[in-house]
Amino acid sequence: MSVPNSAQSTVQAERKAYYQRIAGLSMTPLWEVLHALVPAQPASPCQPALWRYAEVRPFLLESGQLITALEAERRVLILENPGMPGSSCTTHSLYAGLQLILPGEVAPAHRHTQTALRFVVEGLGAYTAVDGERTTMHPGDFIITPSWTWHDHGNPSDEPMVWLDGLDIPIVAFFDAGFMQRGGEQTQREARPQHDAEYRYGANLLPYEYEARSLNSPLFSYPYERSREALEHLRRNAAWHPSHGLKMQYVNPATGGYPMPTIAAFIQLLPQGFQGQTYRSTDATVFCCIEGRGVSRIGGKEFAWGPRDIFVVPSWLSVSHHPAQDCVLFSFSDRPAQKSLGLWREELIA
Amino acid sequence: MSVPNSAQSTVQAERKAYYQRIAGLSMTPLWEVLHALVPAQPASPCQPALWRYAEVRPFLLESGQLITALEAERRVLILENPGMPGSSCTTHSLYAGLQLILPGEVAPAHRHTQTALRFVVEGLGAYTAVDGERTTMHPGDFIITPSWTWHDHGNPSDEPMVWLDGLDIPIVAFFDAGFMQRGGEQTQREARPQHDAEYRYGANLLPYEYEARSLNSPLFSYPYERSREALEHLRRNAAWHPSHGLKMQYVNPATGGYPMPTIAAFIQLLPQGFQGQTYRSTDATVFCCIEGRGVSRIGGKEFAWGPRDIFVVPSWLSVSHHPAQDCVLFSFSDRPAQKSLGLWREELIA
Amino acid sequence: MSVPNSAQSTVQAERKAYYQRIAGLSMTPLWEVLHALVPAQPASPCQPALWRYAEVRPFLLESGQLITALEAERRVLILENPGMPGSSCTTHSLYAGLQLILPGEVAPAHRHTQTALRFVVEGLGAYTAVDGERTTMHPGDFIITPSWTWHDHGNPSDEPMVWLDGLDIPIVAFFDAGFMQRGGEQTQREARPQHDAEYRYGANLLPYEYEARSLNSPLFSYPYERSREALEHLRRNAAWHPSHGLKMQYVNPATGGYPMPTIAAFIQLLPQGFQGQTYRSTDATVFCCIEGRGVSRIGGKEFAWGPRDIFVVPSWLSVSHHPAQDCVLFSFSDRPAQKSLGLWREELIA
Amino acid sequence: MSVPNSAQSTVQAERKAYYQRIAGLSMTPLWEVLHALVPAQPASPCQPALWRYAEVRPFLLESGQLITALEAERRVLILENPGMPGSSCTTHSLYAGLQLILPGEVAPAHRHTQTALRFVVEGLGAYTAVDGERTTMHPGDFIITPSWTWHDHGNPSDEPMVWLDGLDIPIVAFFDAGFMQRGGEQTQREARPQHDAEYRYGANLLPYEYEARSLNSPLFSYPYERSREALEHLRRNAAWHPSHGLKMQYVNPATGGYPMPTIAAFIQLLPQGFQGQTYRSTDATVFCCIEGRGVSRIGGKEFAWGPRDIFVVPSWLSVSHHPAQDCVLFSFSDRPAQKSLGLWREELIA
Repeated sequence: MSVPNSAQSTVQAERKAYYQRIAGLSMTPLWEVLHALVPAQPASPCQPALWRYAEVRPFLLESGQLITALEAERRVLILENPGMPGSSCTTHSLYAGLQLILPGEVAPAHRHTQTALRFVVEGLGAYTAVDGERTTMHPGDFIITPSWTWHDHGNPSDEPMVWLDGLDIPIVAFFDAGFMQRGGEQTQREARPQHDAEYRYGANLLPYEYEARSLNSPLFSYPYERSREALEHLRRNAAWHPSHGLKMQYVNPATGGYPMPTIAAFIQLLPQGFQGQTYRSTDATVFCCIEGRGVSRIGGKEFAWGPRDIFVVPSWLSVSHHPAQDCVLFSFSDRPAQKSLGLWREELIA
Repeated sequence: MSVPNSAQSTVQAERKAYYQRIAGLSMTPLWEVLHALVPAQPASPCQPALWRYAEVRPFLLESGQLITALEAERRVLILENPGMPGSSCTTHSLYAGLQLILPGEVAPAHRHTQTALRFVVEGLGAYTAVDGERTTMHPGDFIITPSWTWHDHGNPSDEPMVWLDGLDIPIVAFFDAGFMQRGGEQTQREARPQHDAEYRYGANLLPYEYEARSLNSPLFSYPYERSREALEHLRRNAAWHPSHGLKMQYVNPATGGYPMPTIAAFIQLLPQGFQGQTYRSTDATVFCCIEGRGVSRIGGKEFAWGPRDIFVVPSWLSVSHHPAQDCVLFSFSDRPAQKSLGLWREELIA
Repeated sequence: MSVPNSAQSTVQAERKAYYQRIAGLSMTPLWEVLHALVPAQPASPCQPALWRYAEVRPFLLESGQLITALEAERRVLILENPGMPGSSCTTHSLYAGLQLILPGEVAPAHRHTQTALRFVVEGLGAYTAVDGERTTMHPGDFIITPSWTWHDHGNPSDEPMVWLDGLDIPIVAFFDAGFMQRGGEQTQREARPQHDAEYRYGANLLPYEYEARSLNSPLFSYPYERSREALEHLRRNAAWHPSHGLKMQYVNPATGGYPMPTIAAFIQLLPQGFQGQTYRSTDATVFCCIEGRGVSRIGGKEFAWGPRDIFVVPSWLSVSHHPAQDCVLFSFSDRPAQKSLGLWREELIA
Repeated sequence: MSVPNSAQSTVQAERKAYYQRIAGLSMTPLWEVLHALVPAQPASPCQPALWRYAEVRPFLLESGQLITALEAERRVLILENPGMPGSSCTTHSLYAGLQLILPGEVAPAHRHTQTALRFVVEGLGAYTAVDGERTTMHPGDFIITPSWTWHDHGNPSDEPMVWLDGLDIPIVAFFDAGFMQRGGEQTQREARPQHDAEYRYGANLLPYEYEARSLNSPLFSYPYERSREALEHLRRNAAWHPSHGLKMQYVNPATGGYPMPTIAAFIQLLPQGFQGQTYRSTDATVFCCIEGRGVSRIGGKEFAWGPRDIFVVPSWLSVSHHPAQDCVLFSFSDRPAQKSLGLWREELIA
């Protein structure tokens, strides 16, 4: 293998010339990029990051003066990952943003292939309407607008409403499979009374001979009141997971699976004094603190968070949670997609 | 085809002799029984029948003086189909009975392959414990004790408790697949607080990375309060099914399927004045009236029912419901088994 | 518990009188039959049995003189389990029989809910037509006629043709779910060339965007030539199962599951000198020897079998196989049904 | 809406200033990019393209002189989409390349999360080994090396071997979920005889009580001889699809689904004179001609192809095929991924 330097550089020159010749045929050598294309382990451009709500909120409110919800169509500040500037991505595969809707405003009806989740951060009394059914939003509520469902938002209350949007925009773009339509009217006509889906699909009953027509949950609102009550009750009994504490996943009641085919969502209780074991998985995860304060160590750095703060744990970076008080965290990731494609891995680190 | 009579009888005699000769080899001719074995349509021995609770109740209470719950192991009066005397069956494939448990009594812990449902008819305050978790029973509650789970019942209240038992005893016997064990103690030690399963599996959440280990629902109590509230809410919107009114099925929240692999259970609201369209299906169904009064026409006969009455609609017999008031009916059948085996058929009759 | 005898008999008399009173209301006490209904382990009426083909064959041929295929519709001798005389069953849930079709005869077209398998025992050149597609039958071929498919058989060859029929007749009867129709013509018009299904579904390809419309395999012929070749090849490598030797299951290529929702079928190679470990399972199984001779110990009794002999292993009875030569056995059972219903158990006995 | 120009430019300036201030917090306005992120229909950078084998082959052989298989690890020329230079992608989500292995060479053992397919273009006698089982490669064979299986290639024949590689490299990179390991030895020890998987999984049989442990097919070789024979037989009967002719999909015999969770593969026969109807779908597709010559119109352009030529149809671009002779085309796309994620759409255009 001890080739004289001059011989080596001749070889390199020949190869380079060859590469240029084949470039004209739209061909390129694998061997020059193999290690970058097929790395030994995930090498994501995504970085850990945290958005403090106290810092973000003034800018969010300022946006309400710069542009109307109607002109913006959706007035959202994208939480763009600092490792991927210009990408409009929060993780490599998911988009997150904070949406503001002011009293009296409407975010007009449209539908798209992209599936969205809303996690209510601040305010009470705005609504999301999905395929003609409105649901009033309260802090901590988890709401979905599945792929290709008509949806609009409105705020008849007298305070600003803010929620965290999570969408699979990068996934749909990656697969070149996105469609979008605007509705004929800004606000959908109400086709069913409020809570219809909650009773129809969410009461451990389903309509007689129900057959799912979508990979998304027919239940689109998961009120915080009920999820929080479940956590509180279960803490009396539950063995705590060494890394995740008492963690539950939102489910599609018609399948028992994740509520959307591209995005999983979780809620977890971490009791005061819990020292979470280090963990990593291939699904980069966006967290939003609902209650309590704590610190998470992500890939060796510490991120201190409190209510309404949002932070990101990239793929395969180690994470551990250290709550200073009883804490409740909401989170979401692309886990269902990774599992469907046979890609998901996780690891508890001793 | 005009064979002389004498020739015909010779043929018959030869055949008979032949049948006797092959009987010694445990063989018998198909052609003599083909039409009975493979009929043009279901020809069930099961008959329509109704048990009036007012008539049944005194006998049920009398049983409480004849035998203790402990001696009986389960003090149940089987609702035996009048078309199948001696069979201990209510339909061809299912067993139903009324179980009585008196104040202070215990029905001791055992487990068996057979899956049971309990539909609470009368009383309040007794409990069913499933694998170490107790649930207090109220009228209208639907409770399951899945295959091979330890279960016991107790009545710490001061009134008699009665529920309708539905089991797949005939199915398990037919497949020669039943096992049974008695517990070391009469009453299971409590392993989890009450309502644990309700919050763990029934709140549109599931434990993190939950994987089902059974074909049965991990949720084993479906309180009437919640089911009734759902019906009441949905009546505001729901299109009424021409035959079934507003009918919902209880589901396994971990799959969206039926709560047990052998038995489906339903609850339906029939509004006053509803004239149900005639219907038939291959799953013979046991109904129990919860609220209201009405008449059902089953195979040409009329059966008038009121609260707590129980009636049976056999396979493929036509049925229509005619409520005199707003009515709520509970029902169960072997539909999941028939669907798994590719056997289920239904028909709306104009 | 030491009750004076006279007191005991008074109790018994009171109970008896009570039982008679409630009988009029179609009720009967569970506690008198509980142990029979819910036994500690399967207590099947099914007995082990063996039909020697050499003994059976003359009677089978004699049936050809007693009745035509047309008059009989299906000229079959049922292999009726000696433990269930008059039941037309071979196991508690399955029916098996030997069907004879003479040169020039036709078994006319009909269809029924019951699903059938044919395992060809003797003869070559007859055909089975399923929904307009004929397949020529050779010894050892495994052929299915799924639920509700039109089928007829014909024998254009010049020798008698015999196959083993396996049907789920008892299952369909038990669930009161059977329908049957006769075709307008005795012989179906050919709708597709021979082998169409074999290439369409059996070549590890499926039609573009194929969606299954049935729980049955769209492939209805599994030629022995191919199955036997697979066994021969795999014996070079395969670890032998301690009880089953080299055992394979026929699959529905559109699902990877059993070919029928009610019946599984298997083929296994047992090498000379193999001493099979004792085993039991809840699915009673019908075996047919294809090649070789051996002995099976079933529930303590020995059954010696050779080519074309048929024997039955009841539910939960222990069985071990002891081939005197290289043997190939075909077998079928109700395993898919038991699995769908959550009932199947098996055990290797040390 | 008629805002004076100066006012407009003030607004724009204010917004720009605002965008700069929020950039420091890793935030960016959705409304400036919404239409690009959520387009009305797929707007892929992927372009239609064709690689003529006659043009490509000399360069491919030349690569054999520039670098050894061992040094290259895999000596592949990537067929890089002309619309995405530098991306190493052939479609937005898939990678395709031509791999050369010379007589006596070895491509050493490694394994990775990425799943690969091989479609044999030229040569005969090289082998691919998957988890210790070798399969000899012939032109037209379709072979997979599923995610995380050890695989190596060797060419003991005396002619160069070329195949088309298809991998989900971009998908795995997008989800940040890739792992890779090199084997201890260049060539795996043979663990099973050749054709073991073919008989174990591919003969419409599966091992007794087989349970899939992967989303990938356990069968990894689909010989052309058998697929071609199926097409030839089926043409006698098959109704031709107006756009696709006689098109079949390769299946995982353990599930009936696609052979890999990320990639589907197809083979289709287009008869001489067939004028394919225009079609589009969201899964960009790579085609390789096996037999015959023809023209495909892709998004308004014509691409003339013959044996071994490779061409790409991007997402949602219309395509129609016009064979000059009987043609056989192989193709692959990310359809299983799109379906799992609820994204796939197709359309026949009148």
